[in-house]
Amino acid sequence: MSTSTSVSGKGLLLKADSIAATFRDDVEKTLGNCSHAPKLVGILSTSSSPSRTYAEFTRKQCESLGFKFELKETGAALPNEGLGEGEGVEEAIMEANEDDSVDGVMVYFPIFGPQQDHYLQQLVSPYKDVEGLHVKFHYNLYHNIRFISPSSLSIPTASATGLTGNEAENDIPPPGMVKSILPCTPLAIVKCLEYAGVYNKILPYGDRAYGKTVVVVNRSEVVGRPLAALLSNDGARVFSVDIDSIQEYTKRPSDPDSSRKYHPRHIVRPPPEAYNTLEACLAVADVIVSAVPNATYKISTAWLKDGCVCVNVAAEKNFEKDVRDKASLYIPAVGKVTILMLLRNLLRLQQYKNVSSTAGSPAQ
Amino acid sequence: MSTSTSVSGKGLLLKADSIAATFRDDVEKTLGNCSHAPKLVGILSTSSSPSRTYAEFTRKQCESLGFKFELKETGAALPNEGLGEGEGVEEAIMEANEDDSVDGVMVYFPIFGPQQDHYLQQLVSPYKDVEGLHVKFHYNLYHNIRFISPSSLSIPTASATGLTGNEAENDIPPPGMVKSILPCTPLAIVKCLEYAGVYNKILPYGDRAYGKTVVVVNRSEVVGRPLAALLSNDGARVFSVDIDSIQEYTKRPSDPDSSRKYHPRHIVRPPPEAYNTLEACLAVADVIVSAVPNATYKISTAWLKDGCVCVNVAAEKNFEKDVRDKASLYIPAVGKVTILMLLRNLLRLQQYKNVSSTAGSPAQ
Repeated sequence: MSTSTSVSGKGLLLKADSIAATFRDDVEKTLGNCSHAPKLVGILSTSSSPSRTYAEFTRKQCESLGFKFELKETGAALPNEGLGEGEGVEEAIMEANEDDSVDGVMVYFPIFGPQQDHYLQQLVSPYKDVEGLHVKFHYNLYHNIRFISPSSLSIPTASATGLTGNEAENDIPPPGMVKSILPCTPLAIVKCLEYAGVYNKILPYGDRAYGKTVVVVNRSEVVGRPLAALLSNDGARVFSVDIDSIQEYTKRPSDPDSSRKYHPRHIVRPPPEAYNTLEACLAVADVIVSAVPNATYKISTAWLKDGCVCVNVAAEKNFEKDVRDKASLYIPAVGKVTILMLLRNLLRLQQYKNVSSTAGSPAQ
Repeated sequence: MSTSTSVSGKGLLLKADSIAATFRDDVEKTLGNCSHAPKLVGILSTSSSPSRTYAEFTRKQCESLGFKFELKETGAALPNEGLGEGEGVEEAIMEANEDDSVDGVMVYFPIFGPQQDHYLQQLVSPYKDVEGLHVKFHYNLYHNIRFISPSSLSIPTASATGLTGNEAENDIPPPGMVKSILPCTPLAIVKCLEYAGVYNKILPYGDRAYGKTVVVVNRSEVVGRPLAALLSNDGARVFSVDIDSIQEYTKRPSDPDSSRKYHPRHIVRPPPEAYNTLEACLAVADVIVSAVPNATYKISTAWLKDGCVCVNVAAEKNFEKDVRDKASLYIPAVGKVTILMLLRNLLRLQQYKNVSSTAGSPAQ
């Protein structure tokens, strides 16, 4: 076991490898039951060297587990072709969508910036969207819809129906339904927190983070907002922090006399006045997740609650070196778990496509 | 005729009213042939007073022309409910999507910021997306796909097929096809430029802006990038300018010996070195369109080419007061044309929905 253990009274350093290992077995077993190994196409269209490194990492992981991986290079990823950054990426996506031999498509972002990249994310067919970035999947996530009919991926609008986490008894989909696809990075963070003991398995399914206060620093559509929604849909109280505001995500009604225990999904509201600074939120946070892509951004160890759990998601280190003086657990990176979530999504989507095509014409 | 005419040697001030009038007749005539007046639902979810003003403007325009308009207020638009900015907007969109009595949905943006707003834009059913903000329509626009099968709006991915502007002989869709929906604001700007004589009707359809150099200041997914694509797909050479870069959009091959006259759609490349400043681009620009939402941003009149056409799209004035000392034509605002484009889209979508539903199950 590669978990680094505590020394000299410091909190535990928990590397992603040990968490990833718990999923690798499952993925290998499911792959063993497949009639053919799913094929993932990665699309690299920029000269970004972190993106190329990540593409090579994807290939290595795929091949070591027995998945097929094909890297399609276009644009500035082909240095001798005189193409611009991102040139040809749309064509590569559409081609992979239409190619029946391709089961999953992942695009290496960033390419053009958040707005245009979001446009590109919507071009990937939901049946091949292993990263879970399509609006359909985000809609389900934000609405706490966990189980869907696979044919709902065939209709043009976001799924409006399905079973929420509160209606389900456990994480097994009812007959005829399948799990919605979750975006890889937020899902990987949730899995890390489950591993770290933040989720309480004694509590009912769909509310296992109840009682935990989480600070999520970053509110992008790719990481911070979906993560805050996932955790609060699971019962946590989340303070979502970005440059210009703090929001509170929670399922619990603000009215203490409310007859309902919780809302069917999280609601978003301004925080109580006592929690309108990061420092005040950190003082009560059991868990801090930070995903700020900036080398100079640091969360002050002095502000952390003793014994908290800290997760660093950015490529840069958002926590100070002495974070383990306060944190009981520190997870410095989640990438190795993310890739396994992606491969799990790939296995699922391959299955959904089959179910959907054998079920005849898409249900309306 | 309400066109303000030239005085004392200054360029013409061309107000949007006179341009809008040319479309009002068409819209009224088409509406007269409808079995029932289409119903537009506006969704206002913020406390923004410009958004409320625009909502009231929409209502007035709809009612004066004979359309039904219903304003759904939610979130901070309802000041006494204690709801946050944007609260309930998703529910309002989904409800309007599912309501068969609703033909068009428009959401008053900005709400949460560009990323989350783009997510919301994708929730509106393409059959009701009068603003033309769905990825399907943007995909068609960027790929110069002008005519589509109405049933293609039923499939989950962006349309990959259709007829481009180069394949069509004129702007009449071939049998079984309909026009794709274009985003209202960029389309309104194109219509203003047609009115202003920038498009040459003697040239073949799909290339009528050939020979014109256009500077577009702004590269957002809502205005600048689709506009640059529309104009370059119509043959113009466009310099797309934003805070940190200038790009050239053109259909013309960079290789002068190329056997092809032009690419099937625009390509995007860095500008020639001589045009890597705004000043240099303005010096050769026949048309300047500016959409910078900043009251202090001004395009210097001194940099304009004598006799150019200037179009201000932002709510703020991006041109200096003396712009008509250089410009032959100045269009200070396009909002009144935009609303007519929206109503035209509404009429079309009502028709597409009917065609699509009588044609049986959606084609795959």
